[in-house]
Amino acid sequence: MGLLINDPCLMIGPIKGLVYIIFLSMLMYTAIGAKVRHLKWEVAYMHWSPDGAEGVVMGINGQFPGPTIRARAGDILHIELTNHLHTEGVVIHWHGIRQIGTPWADGTASISQCAINPGETFVYRFKVDKAGTYFYHGHYGMQRSAGLYGSLIVDVAEGEREPFHYDGEFDLLLSDLWHKDSHAQEVDLSATPMRWIGEPQTLLINGRGQFNCSLAAQFSNSSASQCMLRGNEQYAPQILHVLPNKTYRLRIASTTALASLNLAIGKHKMVVVEADGNYVEPFSVENMDIYSGESYSVLFTTDQNPSNNYWISISVRGRQPRTPQGLTILNYIPTSPSTLPNSPPPISPQWDDYSYSKSFSNKIFALTGSPKPPTTHHRRIMLLNTQNYIDGATKWAINNVSLVLPPTPYLGSIKYGLKNGFDRNTPPDHFNHSYDVLKPAQNQNSTYGNGVYMLNFNTTIDVILQNANALATNVSEIHPWHLHGHDFWVLAYGEGKFTEKDEEKFNLKNPPLRNTAVIFPFGWTALRFVADNPGAWAFHCHIEPHLHMGMGVVFAEGIRRIRTIPVEAIGCGLTGKMLMKNNVHK
Amino acid sequence: MGLLINDPCLMIGPIKGLVYIIFLSMLMYTAIGAKVRHLKWEVAYMHWSPDGAEGVVMGINGQFPGPTIRARAGDILHIELTNHLHTEGVVIHWHGIRQIGTPWADGTASISQCAINPGETFVYRFKVDKAGTYFYHGHYGMQRSAGLYGSLIVDVAEGEREPFHYDGEFDLLLSDLWHKDSHAQEVDLSATPMRWIGEPQTLLINGRGQFNCSLAAQFSNSSASQCMLRGNEQYAPQILHVLPNKTYRLRIASTTALASLNLAIGKHKMVVVEADGNYVEPFSVENMDIYSGESYSVLFTTDQNPSNNYWISISVRGRQPRTPQGLTILNYIPTSPSTLPNSPPPISPQWDDYSYSKSFSNKIFALTGSPKPPTTHHRRIMLLNTQNYIDGATKWAINNVSLVLPPTPYLGSIKYGLKNGFDRNTPPDHFNHSYDVLKPAQNQNSTYGNGVYMLNFNTTIDVILQNANALATNVSEIHPWHLHGHDFWVLAYGEGKFTEKDEEKFNLKNPPLRNTAVIFPFGWTALRFVADNPGAWAFHCHIEPHLHMGMGVVFAEGIRRIRTIPVEAIGCGLTGKMLMKNNVHK
Repeated sequence: MGLLINDPCLMIGPIKGLVYIIFLSMLMYTAIGAKVRHLKWEVAYMHWSPDGAEGVVMGINGQFPGPTIRARAGDILHIELTNHLHTEGVVIHWHGIRQIGTPWADGTASISQCAINPGETFVYRFKVDKAGTYFYHGHYGMQRSAGLYGSLIVDVAEGEREPFHYDGEFDLLLSDLWHKDSHAQEVDLSATPMRWIGEPQTLLINGRGQFNCSLAAQFSNSSASQCMLRGNEQYAPQILHVLPNKTYRLRIASTTALASLNLAIGKHKMVVVEADGNYVEPFSVENMDIYSGESYSVLFTTDQNPSNNYWISISVRGRQPRTPQGLTILNYIPTSPSTLPNSPPPISPQWDDYSYSKSFSNKIFALTGSPKPPTTHHRRIMLLNTQNYIDGATKWAINNVSLVLPPTPYLGSIKYGLKNGFDRNTPPDHFNHSYDVLKPAQNQNSTYGNGVYMLNFNTTIDVILQNANALATNVSEIHPWHLHGHDFWVLAYGEGKFTEKDEEKFNLKNPPLRNTAVIFPFGWTALRFVADNPGAWAFHCHIEPHLHMGMGVVFAEGIRRIRTIPVEAIGCGLTGKMLMKNNVHK
Repeated sequence: MGLLINDPCLMIGPIKGLVYIIFLSMLMYTAIGAKVRHLKWEVAYMHWSPDGAEGVVMGINGQFPGPTIRARAGDILHIELTNHLHTEGVVIHWHGIRQIGTPWADGTASISQCAINPGETFVYRFKVDKAGTYFYHGHYGMQRSAGLYGSLIVDVAEGEREPFHYDGEFDLLLSDLWHKDSHAQEVDLSATPMRWIGEPQTLLINGRGQFNCSLAAQFSNSSASQCMLRGNEQYAPQILHVLPNKTYRLRIASTTALASLNLAIGKHKMVVVEADGNYVEPFSVENMDIYSGESYSVLFTTDQNPSNNYWISISVRGRQPRTPQGLTILNYIPTSPSTLPNSPPPISPQWDDYSYSKSFSNKIFALTGSPKPPTTHHRRIMLLNTQNYIDGATKWAINNVSLVLPPTPYLGSIKYGLKNGFDRNTPPDHFNHSYDVLKPAQNQNSTYGNGVYMLNFNTTIDVILQNANALATNVSEIHPWHLHGHDFWVLAYGEGKFTEKDEEKFNLKNPPLRNTAVIFPFGWTALRFVADNPGAWAFHCHIEPHLHMGMGVVFAEGIRRIRTIPVEAIGCGLTGKMLMKNNVHK
């Protein structure tokens, strides 16, 4: 059959228990409780073949994807990040970590910090306060598309237990790859007229995919040939080795630049138990949707014929797919891992079957006992998502403002009251109530802006994300919105234009807590969060080209409560000038 | 014949006289003497087709090459440069301008200033004190290769006259183009093992060349087809329109990343009158060599048959050429500019005929009355140029040190005595006198470093640039060395290893003053300059990939005499930290 050779290094599932026992024994001899975990990272470009076609990726310590961080709830991560790029700044965002008390460590260029200059080192030091499945990625220009990402797994604190049982676990970080480098993509997207980047060439699982061949060629009528792999290629799949009749946890996170995905394990059901670092009421599915910026844990039981192997597949949803399925193999020990499954890979739901997608999203409820949302809100911000033109270039705008980040980080500009740090006009909380979200806008022109939504500290904020028709008739896209510094409750998804009457549909009983939520085409999504984390926080579409084209806003709250911001974080732009003023040595 | 259509906008030669009269009249109504010339520049990537194959270039105000600056000696240039790149810093070096009293305006990242961050504006303000043919270009990473360059022409001060006559002038800025973008080139050059960028795809004259066709296809037996151009293409040649029986000045500057060039005008002799902004004793040539970093003015007389047009050609020298000649047309009015010359383009000297090259260099003497060098030196620095390995990566090293620039600009580190700004070990003034420059090194390993040659103020410095065998046997390359902040006298070129006895060959009578001088394969070049310009100054091989691989040193002198450095120039790295220290607002 295939030529997938077992690499024992990848056999992490079954031996996890033993490793944990050793690990726990070691901990007992060191310290009880939380630890400071020191990491030294160097970011540099390097040649790499994520899908067999060599290109350049942004690696960390010579690895792509970057190293997986494994910590326990309550630990402090102390990451010394050195920029070894030649002319580019860099930052890393710790996606899903709320950065309570450390807003300068959120890793968002122009918002929480200055980009780290080439040759410089910046220390990210923050607490991972909550167990869950997270990841990290670049948050400057399109450096996520360049491959700057990795997994961040937070186990429950010592002595605590997860509310579900499993015998082993695997980590699947999902991404999409373009052969055109991210700099050229930036130029294309910023051009007048805009040049769209198109669909990705390859879907990657843990940074690995196949472009010139297919693992499942014999099941398809495409022209791709069967992959002939030794297993040590950079683009060889990471095979998941399992024992029969066990339960495994799959930690799945999507850091795609664009693609919405559907994941399935051939012939295995999955039970969803975690979303974005929060426990959810378990529910069973045949396959699951995952949007960029989301993470999930699912449990599956190896209850199938152990003399076969099975496909794990990811497929594009929400956009007409031009990218082959991403695949890897679930290998039942002792079946040879190079035995290909005896049936085709899972067939994903039709790409534009949004009812299917909504059905999945609507199955997600907080686990009983999870924090409940406040029953009322202090402020409701309606955010209309539109595609627009500015001077002939295509942009995305929120309430007709397309975000262009300023050179001075908001955190410092607000803290020190620098008037010229950003637009002092507060962006609008509402859009014209006569706006027809089902049709292309009558006036398709928009403007640039970088104002801030200033939130009163400790108030409850409702955000209604309102989707609309894009520039072309009968087109409305999926946008997964990600909030920094907070989790929010997803109160409801709805169709068409939100009205006050839709409040009746809000789920205040057991809405899921998340950091990312999707808006469906021509629909709306209602979120609620408490503005209780002093800082300046990005809230944006997690599709990187959309953010690059302006699809985001900035929230800020409680900045007066921040005592001192490390000068390393804000020593650029106007804050840098201010801090240097009157301090010129002669 | 061809299809080169006249664009009247390009007809700058014959109408120059009239324009000048109008210009002078205007000046008379404004002010006598020097002016401050205000420019607002925005640097951004843009799609462009310099040779017919579309790529991305770094443009200024939407132009490639950047706008030509035209000023008069004594003028102040005030250039507000805004960085509209997405994640990259930027600086611009004003090549050949000595920056007397303004060392922070030299535009060298890590040496004279911090790179300008995206979204930020930096003001370059400096005097152009000396008439001549100059240019400007990026000096960070490989941004010159990305296309960040343009011409800077300084006319004599009002009321002054050039020491030669001409009826019109043209400006030819020469460069070379790779289809692989400069970021990918940087990664290739830094890789282990190093991947060499190879020869350029196209030679450009004023940013224009032809890749998919040839202007002279009918004269060649290559497979290239004859270009069919309307004249308004980005890659159409700029035609030089001349009147018969006039004398024209050609201002020629080479900002190539790699290529050494030979320039010729079919059937016309040229008289060299200026080199690097200094007048030289006129001499006549059939064709001329020009290395990266050099500039020349030549005069030619339109004394040929006016019913023909003539080629202007540039060809690669010093490396086995894999790049077609760069061509444009000298059009005798009223002959149609689309009439192709009736004979083939000039044949350049054999690429490796170094005797020919040396013969040209040895014809260059300062114009009678030019400043003469001091007859003795205070310090002699011997700089051995070698190709080496560091941890398996190929580098260039000077006295076995491969330059890696620090994140904090030297100018600030030295001024404020910051110990950790750079290596405090002074790099060596000499190399092992038993080193055999004719053979590959016995120990090919080198080390990184970033120490500074501290020069005593107002002392006379001799530099002996010593070439050597590169890594491969019987290979030694051309390196054009460029000094910032000064002109130097070129005292002599010699063969083999320099010995004290070679001092007898020094020309102290009329050596040319220049800012760039070449070392020939297996040879040496002796330079002398006076360290009379307070500042930190790069001295480096002007081949950009060689500089990227470490081929440079840093000189500094008189820094105590600099009163105050604008904080905008040094507000990064350790100087930024120092200036912000004790100044944290709460």
